[in-house]
Amino acid sequence: MAAASTIFSDCSPSSMTARLLPLRRIHIDSILFRSSISPPPPPRRRTISSAFAARMTAETSAKVIDGKSIAKQIRDEITIEISRMKDATGVVPGLAVILVGSRKDSQTYVRNKKKACFNNDPSIHGILVQLPLPRHMDEENILNSVSIEKDVDGFHPLNIGRLAMRGREPLFVPCTPKGCIELLHRSGVEIKGKRAVVIGRSNIVGMPAALLLQRENATVAIVHSYTKNPEEITRQADIVISAAGVANMVRGSWIKPGAVVIDVGINAVDDPESHRGYRLVGDVCYKEACTVASAITPVPVKTRNQRINWGKSEPSKGFEAAYIL
Amino acid sequence: MAAASTIFSDCSPSSMTARLLPLRRIHIDSILFRSSISPPPPPRRRTISSAFAARMTAETSAKVIDGKSIAKQIRDEITIEISRMKDATGVVPGLAVILVGSRKDSQTYVRNKKKACFNNDPSIHGILVQLPLPRHMDEENILNSVSIEKDVDGFHPLNIGRLAMRGREPLFVPCTPKGCIELLHRSGVEIKGKRAVVIGRSNIVGMPAALLLQRENATVAIVHSYTKNPEEITRQADIVISAAGVANMVRGSWIKPGAVVIDVGINAVDDPESHRGYRLVGDVCYKEACTVASAITPVPVKTRNQRINWGKSEPSKGFEAAYIL
Repeated sequence: MAAASTIFSDCSPSSMTARLLPLRRIHIDSILFRSSISPPPPPRRRTISSAFAARMTAETSAKVIDGKSIAKQIRDEITIEISRMKDATGVVPGLAVILVGSRKDSQTYVRNKKKACFNNDPSIHGILVQLPLPRHMDEENILNSVSIEKDVDGFHPLNIGRLAMRGREPLFVPCTPKGCIELLHRSGVEIKGKRAVVIGRSNIVGMPAALLLQRENATVAIVHSYTKNPEEITRQADIVISAAGVANMVRGSWIKPGAVVIDVGINAVDDPESHRGYRLVGDVCYKEACTVASAITPVPVKTRNQRINWGKSEPSKGFEAAYIL
Repeated sequence: MAAASTIFSDCSPSSMTARLLPLRRIHIDSILFRSSISPPPPPRRRTISSAFAARMTAETSAKVIDGKSIAKQIRDEITIEISRMKDATGVVPGLAVILVGSRKDSQTYVRNKKKACFNNDPSIHGILVQLPLPRHMDEENILNSVSIEKDVDGFHPLNIGRLAMRGREPLFVPCTPKGCIELLHRSGVEIKGKRAVVIGRSNIVGMPAALLLQRENATVAIVHSYTKNPEEITRQADIVISAAGVANMVRGSWIKPGAVVIDVGINAVDDPESHRGYRLVGDVCYKEACTVASAITPVPVKTRNQRINWGKSEPSKGFEAAYIL
């Protein structure tokens, strides 16, 4: 009972004064989705889509989209693909990650490092600038200085432009939105013709997620800070991708019965019972939403084999959250 | 009575076997909207916005958005701006237009012409490739070969990417979507926080129009050929921009009472009474929509001083319509 009341308190507006954390990045070790590589078809597809239409009434519990298991499938597939590539060409993909944390690295330093070391290094096939950068750094200049051919994050405007345009193909697709679509595909959720709402319009998640859903022929609407009736609009969606960065903002009443919910948010809320003094929750009030949705991703994801240490996502000094609602 | 029955027939599904024409381009002679030039504020702003909220019940006639008058305002403003620029710098903007009609010009010819003559010509400040191109030409290669600094149409993927991204500014904005936003602004229609629906998602109009509305902080949804309930979604919009290329598709019942409608479509429908055998209508069934909307653009626009001869928009052999719904 105490637990239930704590959960309800988390979903109430008064508890939404959350500390914002950097966006979750669905990186799978150092191997990223690459549009030029076609992985073999997933070994088994869940049949959420068949349940999708039928579950138009509230149920007690949504199917949990098992991101951990899906990530393992993808890792296994890519491992095979890389092995084949190595056998055929002798080359193994190399990724350079530029992570700017609390140290006040200068913009020039980072730019020169990339230009000198990575753009011209034939053993580095991808360059990834970990966003968000501290506010004093010129993100635009830094991203523009990454070779378009090595922009594995797909954040170069040329890649975003190609993503937006029909008949064009981006060289790379931003990984978090791509991961959201992958979760839908591999959970057997049909996207074409469905109404989708993306909450948040950041360059990192919301905007490219909307463009990807559009490419999948969903009918897409984007909800943001100027949207007057976010609840009403979100409730019309068969598919909700939330990347707002506001803890427990999306209540159960926002979800259309039977909808599929992908929660990208990772937000810290005060929790005196935790030894850290806070705990992580999504944008979506999980306990409410899972009684209405047909499928939902939990936040935080519980991984047995947790290669990515989410603890590193804690805000550090000089680090600004990039969430834009 | 005969006229009324003809009009009703035009709006019926059976009369929608329209020949498609190239998209209307809101060119104002050879002077285009340029994001780096800030025109002086318009001399007078209509107060449609005040009527906007009040007109939630059906009325007999919408305010006609007078594109001709607004275009004249803009021309006058830009004339002053150009005059100032000439006085200050001695330079007058030069625009090169590449119009590929029924002649089977080779792709190489066009590319070489642009590269040789225009990209490097200091007296040419803007290059405009008139779209759509005949289908046998590689539109992507041709557009990519235009210098980004001279891409006045804003169709280069780098410009589209910048348009899509928050915190980035495109060098140029596609002119037809920019014209739609200009019509709204200069008619006093508030965009921020309004629900907007764009019908059609072409690279030329629909997609960039949605991105522009998003930049103006509207809540945007895009309706396209895979949308299952276009009428229902369109009826939720305070602002409708239609660029579908389907004659009279948007019926009065699609329009929310009091909404503002910008009709970009120019479609030919059979009309034995016309000496041409057809006449031009918009995507929107005007006679129905104008009884519901608070403001609407007529198609075709009736211009007294018609510098742009719409007659040239007739389809010619080898010319493919670029409409994508």
